[in-house]
Amino acid sequence: MIFIDSALGKKTPYTPIWMMRQAGRYLSEYRESRAKAGSFLDLCKNVELATEVTLQPIDILDVDAAILFSDILVVPLEMGLPLEFLAGEGPKFNQTIRSESDFKALKKDAYKNLTYVYDAVSSIRAKLSKDKALIGFCGSPWTLATYMIEGEGSKTYTHSKKMLYSNPKLLHALLESITQELVSYLGEQIRAGANAVMVFDSWASALELSAYLNFSWEYMKKIAKAIKSQYPHIPVMLFPKGVGAYLEHLDGEFDVFGVDWGTPMSLAKEKLGGKYVLQGNLEPARLYNRQAMLEGVEQILSVMNEDRGHIFNLGHGMIPDLPRENAIELVQLVREKTKR
Amino acid sequence: MIFIDSALGKKTPYTPIWMMRQAGRYLSEYRESRAKAGSFLDLCKNVELATEVTLQPIDILDVDAAILFSDILVVPLEMGLPLEFLAGEGPKFNQTIRSESDFKALKKDAYKNLTYVYDAVSSIRAKLSKDKALIGFCGSPWTLATYMIEGEGSKTYTHSKKMLYSNPKLLHALLESITQELVSYLGEQIRAGANAVMVFDSWASALELSAYLNFSWEYMKKIAKAIKSQYPHIPVMLFPKGVGAYLEHLDGEFDVFGVDWGTPMSLAKEKLGGKYVLQGNLEPARLYNRQAMLEGVEQILSVMNEDRGHIFNLGHGMIPDLPRENAIELVQLVREKTKR
Repeated sequence: MIFIDSALGKKTPYTPIWMMRQAGRYLSEYRESRAKAGSFLDLCKNVELATEVTLQPIDILDVDAAILFSDILVVPLEMGLPLEFLAGEGPKFNQTIRSESDFKALKKDAYKNLTYVYDAVSSIRAKLSKDKALIGFCGSPWTLATYMIEGEGSKTYTHSKKMLYSNPKLLHALLESITQELVSYLGEQIRAGANAVMVFDSWASALELSAYLNFSWEYMKKIAKAIKSQYPHIPVMLFPKGVGAYLEHLDGEFDVFGVDWGTPMSLAKEKLGGKYVLQGNLEPARLYNRQAMLEGVEQILSVMNEDRGHIFNLGHGMIPDLPRENAIELVQLVREKTKR
Repeated sequence: MIFIDSALGKKTPYTPIWMMRQAGRYLSEYRESRAKAGSFLDLCKNVELATEVTLQPIDILDVDAAILFSDILVVPLEMGLPLEFLAGEGPKFNQTIRSESDFKALKKDAYKNLTYVYDAVSSIRAKLSKDKALIGFCGSPWTLATYMIEGEGSKTYTHSKKMLYSNPKLLHALLESITQELVSYLGEQIRAGANAVMVFDSWASALELSAYLNFSWEYMKKIAKAIKSQYPHIPVMLFPKGVGAYLEHLDGEFDVFGVDWGTPMSLAKEKLGGKYVLQGNLEPARLYNRQAMLEGVEQILSVMNEDRGHIFNLGHGMIPDLPRENAIELVQLVREKTKR
């Protein structure tokens, strides 16, 4: 698999490409499957339909990797927090973790209840072409913890930061217990057939440097190390969004660093290139306009067009109203321009 | 004025300090004035009450500078976009600028209608102690443009980015016309008595590097240059929030660079120190906890405690539920620790 070779730092005949949120609302096929499923969470739990939407971008875009269709919040859900996705409002938990006793009430071994995810992974891997990789994933401990503490998406992270600066011990205990779940969760995904795993730290940019290193990156590294020691042949990919100013402080045992569009690729290359394969980082909004897309690709490839060390991706997820024809052209374009 | 000396790069007997959003809801005195005024916008337009709330943090905290109490959105309001502040929802315009004809309908010389702001500046300056500086301000052209295009605060900036990548000419025309208004607006604030001016680019982090430089920083520099050429003795302060990964690309004719908490002070010093006075950057959430606040101050002063080149501030605005006693102690602490 070209994607896996590239992720492990080997030479490849062209630069592989996939797109974050490549299975999503910009595809009419996705919207149809989603309508069949019912709610967003129903879609995540329906093995047949989750398989269907995971494979759609492989058929339509011909990307080099599929990513499991699921949501990072199924882990806190199975840890005991009732979860709803409200239309137009995003996810909401009806309980929060703000005290020692809230924390103690969380269920242990939540990963054992996530069989619908592992079943989806096996089902996808069985149907996916042998030359395409399947990426499993989870949210980072910090990102999941903030959802659990705030109860929903947040702009200010008030409760999480209060806990961080006033009761760091409780936050560390929560992060540690999420970390243990995630190591087991990713392990099960790998045993079910995932060829690589990615940890999404969507809310990395909520924290100043010292807090980020202690309360988020430390746990990302712990997960990466645990996976690499058990499954050395599986690429581990970390994506901390919005920490371009912290790059020189980020290290650890992992393979691929996901570069968001707010971090110039040249800076990522200077600080992390050589040590890690870099994945990214086209600004998704460039796909609104074909010319802007072409220029964005040129910019990135002028920095990164080498026979190893780069996986092409967007710098954040696909936007629901982007034109699919541009996504299709993007894949072909990157493949042609990087052919060696 | 120690603040002005410091902002112009001169040696000062201690490091001056003020806090973004120092006049705000964490002060009961502010909440009382606000209740008297009626709406938030009424408070901005009421010269007597705007003066009162501007001076409150001088009396209560003993900071070295007052900042005019107003809102960045009064400029688009006077350019012809009806503005409401909805409780708990933030600002909302009932019209947006998304086409050539929307743009052409904007009023010219909006700055002439902002007399309530200039009156507030004169009134504040008349009552403010002579050793304290008065800072005037405006939003950046990009930040104001996105509000005008989206109609409200946004997470995705969809319409603004569509315009940026698909119709850059229209966006440049809008940015240019806002820029002209802002140069006149800040000029009038200076003539009314402002001792320094600051441009807040609150939504800087919405843009990738090349887009940021072309569609935001370029216009920030234009404003700075115009002000410096007319008023060389007035410090110009720029605050682009969330662009720590772009620092080496930022230059221009201005005096003070505002460092947000997501940019490590050591990085700002490495990339911009010497060239500009650095202002910042305590993570405001550290004020939730006295010990966390003390440690944060130590961290910053270990990098910046010199006899020039630093103005102490938060790395973003005060949070409404922060304890005022910590804000009061912060001012005393910085003053003592930096006494030369």
